[in-house]
Amino acid sequence: MNNFTYEELELGHTESFSVTITQEMQDSFRAMTGDVNPLHSSEEFAKAKGYDGVVVFGMLTSSLYSTLAGVYLPGEKSLVHSCEAKFMKPVYIGDTLTVEGKVDEKNDTYGLIRIKAVIRNQNGVKVSKASLQVGLI
Amino acid sequence: MNNFTYEELELGHTESFSVTITQEMQDSFRAMTGDVNPLHSSEEFAKAKGYDGVVVFGMLTSSLYSTLAGVYLPGEKSLVHSCEAKFMKPVYIGDTLTVEGKVDEKNDTYGLIRIKAVIRNQNGVKVSKASLQVGLI
Repeated sequence: MNNFTYEELELGHTESFSVTITQEMQDSFRAMTGDVNPLHSSEEFAKAKGYDGVVVFGMLTSSLYSTLAGVYLPGEKSLVHSCEAKFMKPVYIGDTLTVEGKVDEKNDTYGLIRIKAVIRNQNGVKVSKASLQVGLI
Repeated sequence: MNNFTYEELELGHTESFSVTITQEMQDSFRAMTGDVNPLHSSEEFAKAKGYDGVVVFGMLTSSLYSTLAGVYLPGEKSLVHSCEAKFMKPVYIGDTLTVEGKVDEKNDTYGLIRIKAVIRNQNGVKVSKASLQVGLI
């Protein structure tokens, strides 16, 4: 786990990691949240809506922004204040996502950083983007 | 599960549900995301940072916005496009959260709704607020 201090993080500092979305993660998210919407469980339903298969929960993909901040950027001192995320393209079970974040702003008064983040799939398609405000405690 | 159409949803339509955050949910989120930041697992670490105990992942709390849209508002036809969430106060294991969302805007051209949502704990304290853009498909 990284453990950057506010002073160590320069504008443009970038961190990334990759993860493959499994059926187990999808099931785990459903059990945790109670979001039983069939778009995320029924292949028949999802295909009838025009998708290639069951769609991964957008908020599951967004949950990876928690990992980006808490483990990589800044790591141990992370306290996420806000996350503005857009879900741009569908994510499917088995997709390998690369989550990348960059320090975009620093607020010296409050010791806060703004992280611009993007998630791409194995084909380089941008599936999500976000802006996070993170404190270092 | 609700199954509102775009036409049925009027401005101001409100839905809500409550859920108690368990240790199992916290463990499930950690396993799913790989966010092993000690603020969310070590009571000693969290207390040293000034918290009353282990802090629930902000993005776990935010995941309940997925349930709000996918099950309650609008329910089955939901497709979340974006979620801008602020984490205002710490959430602890055992807290009972009430998630409430209200139709704040309707975009007739695209059939999109804007939901303003808020999450309060058992003491009525606002712990998170969000704005979601949701399509009806």
